[in-house]
Amino acid sequence: MEIDGFAFKMALRVRWAEVDRQGIVFNAHYLTYFDIGITEYWRAIGLPYPDGVAGTGSDLYVAKAMVNYHGSAGYDDVLEVAVRAARLGNSSVTFAIEIRREGQLLTTGEVVYVNADPGTRQAQAFPARVRQAIAAFEQSVELK
Amino acid sequence: MEIDGFAFKMALRVRWAEVDRQGIVFNAHYLTYFDIGITEYWRAIGLPYPDGVAGTGSDLYVAKAMVNYHGSAGYDDVLEVAVRAARLGNSSVTFAIEIRREGQLLTTGEVVYVNADPGTRQAQAFPARVRQAIAAFEQSVELK
Amino acid sequence: MEIDGFAFKMALRVRWAEVDRQGIVFNAHYLTYFDIGITEYWRAIGLPYPDGVAGTGSDLYVAKAMVNYHGSAGYDDVLEVAVRAARLGNSSVTFAIEIRREGQLLTTGEVVYVNADPGTRQAQAFPARVRQAIAAFEQSVELK
Amino acid sequence: MEIDGFAFKMALRVRWAEVDRQGIVFNAHYLTYFDIGITEYWRAIGLPYPDGVAGTGSDLYVAKAMVNYHGSAGYDDVLEVAVRAARLGNSSVTFAIEIRREGQLLTTGEVVYVNADPGTRQAQAFPARVRQAIAAFEQSVELK
Repeated sequence: MEIDGFAFKMALRVRWAEVDRQGIVFNAHYLTYFDIGITEYWRAIGLPYPDGVAGTGSDLYVAKAMVNYHGSAGYDDVLEVAVRAARLGNSSVTFAIEIRREGQLLTTGEVVYVNADPGTRQAQAFPARVRQAIAAFEQSVELK
Repeated sequence: MEIDGFAFKMALRVRWAEVDRQGIVFNAHYLTYFDIGITEYWRAIGLPYPDGVAGTGSDLYVAKAMVNYHGSAGYDDVLEVAVRAARLGNSSVTFAIEIRREGQLLTTGEVVYVNADPGTRQAQAFPARVRQAIAAFEQSVELK
Repeated sequence: MEIDGFAFKMALRVRWAEVDRQGIVFNAHYLTYFDIGITEYWRAIGLPYPDGVAGTGSDLYVAKAMVNYHGSAGYDDVLEVAVRAARLGNSSVTFAIEIRREGQLLTTGEVVYVNADPGTRQAQAFPARVRQAIAAFEQSVELK
Repeated sequence: MEIDGFAFKMALRVRWAEVDRQGIVFNAHYLTYFDIGITEYWRAIGLPYPDGVAGTGSDLYVAKAMVNYHGSAGYDDVLEVAVRAARLGNSSVTFAIEIRREGQLLTTGEVVYVNADPGTRQAQAFPARVRQAIAAFEQSVELK
């Protein structure tokens, strides 16, 4: 049951500590919201981080993050965080994220993760179970 | 005296609270590091935020942020944060940022700010003093 | 329906960003957890912060906070945050807080708030509606 | 050269991200300031954390923290954080902390650390080199 192309969404409430002197959520905290949404995405597809998705000899590392700020969230707002695995490469996955408040689009963004060896940081191909779990969850994912 | 095209740089030390279970700085904190660098940039050009740059009836709002993670910073690392006003529009400014540790490039990114009316969020042209201060500081800035 | 003397409790899940290199929640974040619990306490008694409890000409300021760390919370733990208005003075309120994970006591603490004028920071007596709402919620509260 | 009984002090500047909608530093961040001050204290006495003070088979864990809020710090304020090892037990150390802005006392507090085995969390006696370094730095420390 997708909503606007997002197979997963969750709600979170803005904390007092996250709102700055302008009365709006400080820009960096949206990356934390993205992280929380992605954490719940992994849980939703049956591969809770880290034990589900990060195997022996590999872990996920953020390679790139982008945030577009369309509107401002304020204290106590209940936000809807929608997460989609937009691109799945051999050893990387790109999540597309949208944050809305009562339907109004506040934030869009992307986070690119690379699956890599914790010691050497060499990229590692995702195991088949990770690829299958994402593909099964995302009807529209583009498998390269 | 520019270094690698950056007229401004500052140092900061990674805090214990900023390092996660992977032993590296959590990805969202780099936007806070960017914010600290930009704060000091405004001070360096003689327009400390908010009183110097944000006038009556206008304030700065982040419109877009990008972070590329090339390497990981760890606890207690001393980081060099370099900031440059890369593009100056009528009512927006784009800062390019690089973070290095002992010369090694760890992070690059951009933050786009829009000067806007706090009430309506309508974009406002930067006053001449802001444009002049940035242009005077940046020899290579592209004035549109 | 009190549980262990606490009329209010809520659940929250530990975020990745809150866990440090020791693999446990960084000590300062427990004060944020306390703040979240107290926010929900005000909502539960019908006086959501700030509009419900902070009136015209007064706001709440933290005067004192104490945290006792009995055990460590880790990533993804679901914590139960219990909040009680333990003491209600003329212009101050002391919240007692307990944090548990699956029944195990991890943290206890207190936060003392003073109701004060935002400009002068002079203490202001709580209005009757605040006192009554707290007293009605807490059967065991000691009214001075 | 002690100042007001504190052998160690350092300066830090309040970040934008640390100031809340009331225009003051959010209460939890003072524990982060305490942590930063204590980190620099360990460095100042020649035992940088973790390698200097935490040996093989032991690490420091916060057992208790207290903060008294006397005044509010605001954005961009330069704060002086003074740290003193007030009590040194067999396996614990209590730091007393004061934060001032241009001489005005804003915050006082204490943080109690226990030296413990990371696996079992059993308390471990501080090695002689830690006790000696603290004693040498603090003329007035009370050795139990």
